Amino acid sequence: MARLVMKFGGTSVADIPRIRNVAQHVKREVAAGYEVAVVVSAMSGVTNQLVGWVREIAPFHDAREYDAVVASGEQVTSGLLALALQEIGINARSWQGWQIPLRTDRQHGSARIEAVECDPMIERMAQGQVAVIAGFQGIAPDDRIATLGRGGSDTSAVAIAAALSAERCDIYTDVDGVYTTDPRIESKAKRLDKVSFEEMLEMASLGAKVLQVRSVELAMVKGVRTFVRSSFDKPDSISTDAPVGTLICDEEEIVEKKTVTGIAYSKDEAQLSLRRVADKPGVAASVFVPLSEANINVDMIVQNVSEDSSTTDLTFTVPIADYDRARKVLEDRKAEIGFQLLQGSVDVAKVSVIGIGMRSHAGVAAEAFSALAKRGINIRAITTSEIKISILIDAPFTELAVRTLHSVYGLDN
Amino acid sequence: MARLVMKFGGTSVADIPRIRNVAQHVKREVAAGYEVAVVVSAMSGVTNQLVGWVREIAPFHDAREYDAVVASGEQVTSGLLALALQEIGINARSWQGWQIPLRTDRQHGSARIEAVECDPMIERMAQGQVAVIAGFQGIAPDDRIATLGRGGSDTSAVAIAAALSAERCDIYTDVDGVYTTDPRIESKAKRLDKVSFEEMLEMASLGAKVLQVRSVELAMVKGVRTFVRSSFDKPDSISTDAPVGTLICDEEEIVEKKTVTGIAYSKDEAQLSLRRVADKPGVAASVFVPLSEANINVDMIVQNVSEDSSTTDLTFTVPIADYDRARKVLEDRKAEIGFQLLQGSVDVAKVSVIGIGMRSHAGVAAEAFSALAKRGINIRAITTSEIKISILIDAPFTELAVRTLHSVYGLDN
Repeated sequence: MARLVMKFGGTSVADIPRIRNVAQHVKREVAAGYEVAVVVSAMSGVTNQLVGWVREIAPFHDAREYDAVVASGEQVTSGLLALALQEIGINARSWQGWQIPLRTDRQHGSARIEAVECDPMIERMAQGQVAVIAGFQGIAPDDRIATLGRGGSDTSAVAIAAALSAERCDIYTDVDGVYTTDPRIESKAKRLDKVSFEEMLEMASLGAKVLQVRSVELAMVKGVRTFVRSSFDKPDSISTDAPVGTLICDEEEIVEKKTVTGIAYSKDEAQLSLRRVADKPGVAASVFVPLSEANINVDMIVQNVSEDSSTTDLTFTVPIADYDRARKVLEDRKAEIGFQLLQGSVDVAKVSVIGIGMRSHAGVAAEAFSALAKRGINIRAITTSEIKISILIDAPFTELAVRTLHSVYGLDN
Repeated sequence: MARLVMKFGGTSVADIPRIRNVAQHVKREVAAGYEVAVVVSAMSGVTNQLVGWVREIAPFHDAREYDAVVASGEQVTSGLLALALQEIGINARSWQGWQIPLRTDRQHGSARIEAVECDPMIERMAQGQVAVIAGFQGIAPDDRIATLGRGGSDTSAVAIAAALSAERCDIYTDVDGVYTTDPRIESKAKRLDKVSFEEMLEMASLGAKVLQVRSVELAMVKGVRTFVRSSFDKPDSISTDAPVGTLICDEEEIVEKKTVTGIAYSKDEAQLSLRRVADKPGVAASVFVPLSEANINVDMIVQNVSEDSSTTDLTFTVPIADYDRARKVLEDRKAEIGFQLLQGSVDVAKVSVIGIGMRSHAGVAAEAFSALAKRGINIRAITTSEIKISILIDAPFTELAVRTLHSVYGLDN
């Protein structure tokens, strides 16, 4: 019989009535003939309280104890949902990470999944028992609880779907799918029926907060068809044959490939520019190694070919929260790096055009640049990859740029 | 090196400042040279919330899921206390019941401890690491979490002390020991330095709410010296040589045995009397089997030798909460049992005189009866055991009776 993994986040299990609602969703899929495993997060607010207690006691805490404390949130939800299912006549039991066992590496607090040894669980599922799994956690080689880091329940769900060879991994969330852009900015944004793993990866890391990046990476590697859908739909009014949502899948499964799939944006980055840097081997390393050592993530990097081939300009972006720290790191090494001027701005935004069809379509980038130019939007920097064009602009133009690009690529229709 | 078990209840770990206070208590004992294991309850209020959620979802719940949910409370406290200890420079780690493992039977929700396999923990303790143990829980033969029932953390602590061959099991609570009677009733009540297991068992089951009955039984069987003391004393002002509290120990260790150790009372019972019951074999069974089947605990039982040897009077007590149900059970079987009249009262109290010295002293009971008579207190029923006399009286006389008996046996001085 086909297996299905269903994952519910914190807002979907925030209180007892919502947990009962989740049970109804599960009941529908059981009735449709699936062997079901459900992965749950902690009730919303609970994880924050637990993390708050840990930080109050110990700002620099032992990650193993952090894990023991914080993992309790999902433990509670898994037990409660198992009970809610039993109450409506469905055979169900809870599984903690250590009971499955879902094995992780030693990186407590942000562990990576190494193996999901779920034979006993598969056996129970084959006997008709729904498995209710505490997400976000596993057991490390030291036999202690390890959590997967924030948003780790998505990753749990995908890993378990892979281990179960599930037909699909349904991620229930507070939106009903992935959109061509943020509907709060462009009311003409459309829900995508399908999006490829690669595209979703770009969307996820570019600010579309629907799915954790790590879970999309894992889904891509393991080929897990992942379906983003709403937990607020009435459980019994949903068609199991043609549910509403967005399927994230291999591009082979997407018949009609559009050139551009979506427009993402991020206002969380700041720009830094080093002017007239000595253009010699090793200069990039002298800039980016110290930033990496200071734990600052660098995103866009643009280096122009220099006019006179003796100096160059280097522009890149860092998270706004790290802007001041990054400036200090660079100023402290001014002589070593050999730049003349450090400029920067926090008042910037990154707008990205994403689409797997770009690979085979020339002129996609040119279209974007001329459309923005017509609107008088100044382009600060550009980076491109095979399926993405990212453009750094002045922050006040963000919404205008998003709407302009959404329209120019025909996503409004 | 000598080992010490320290147990802290819910009010002692109710918030972060109190958890830090507990860490100071532990630090003191570590400094005194002990290898320490600490057993903790859930932060006060947490267990009630978890139980509330379970009941809201499922009034008749799967005890295994109840256990998964409710055991999370102690898991949180154990992690937080381990962190608080690390913060003040003490090597410490948390142990969940399944990690030790503390093995229980299959009776989820009120499991009994079967074995404490703590070799790895002993090894860590020998290396100077404090073991912080989540109380109230273990792992059942089905590899799922099992809780020990309300107050089970006391039992965890005593079982672990036995497994560790600990010198002592210190139970930190909101009182500083066991008293000759309730100090709220008799201000002259004195803290006992020592009390025997047998006496404490009578005190615990008679309404002195310091320690769980099961934990005292286990301490008696395993010979665990158990010390009741206050967690609200300033951790650093305490002498480790002569701490303040009450030691519950083997009577051999009590040099000066008093005839009477304490006066206990209970207002939680109701009286039922069957008048003119046919005095024939099997009549007691016809009364008490149906009550037991209705899950009603019967405490005092008094049967008088009948005047004319054809009928008898049967008096017993049941918990007040079960009074109406018990009456109905009996009325429904009136013909079967063969009694003429059912009388009862909820307005009664049980006062008990407890002392291991009674065994070798005649006249202890007579002293009680005449003292009560002098005060005009009517005696409804009497039961006695080797070390206890229980007297059922009218509830309004409870305090007077307690004070009278406290004085007559010289406990005031």
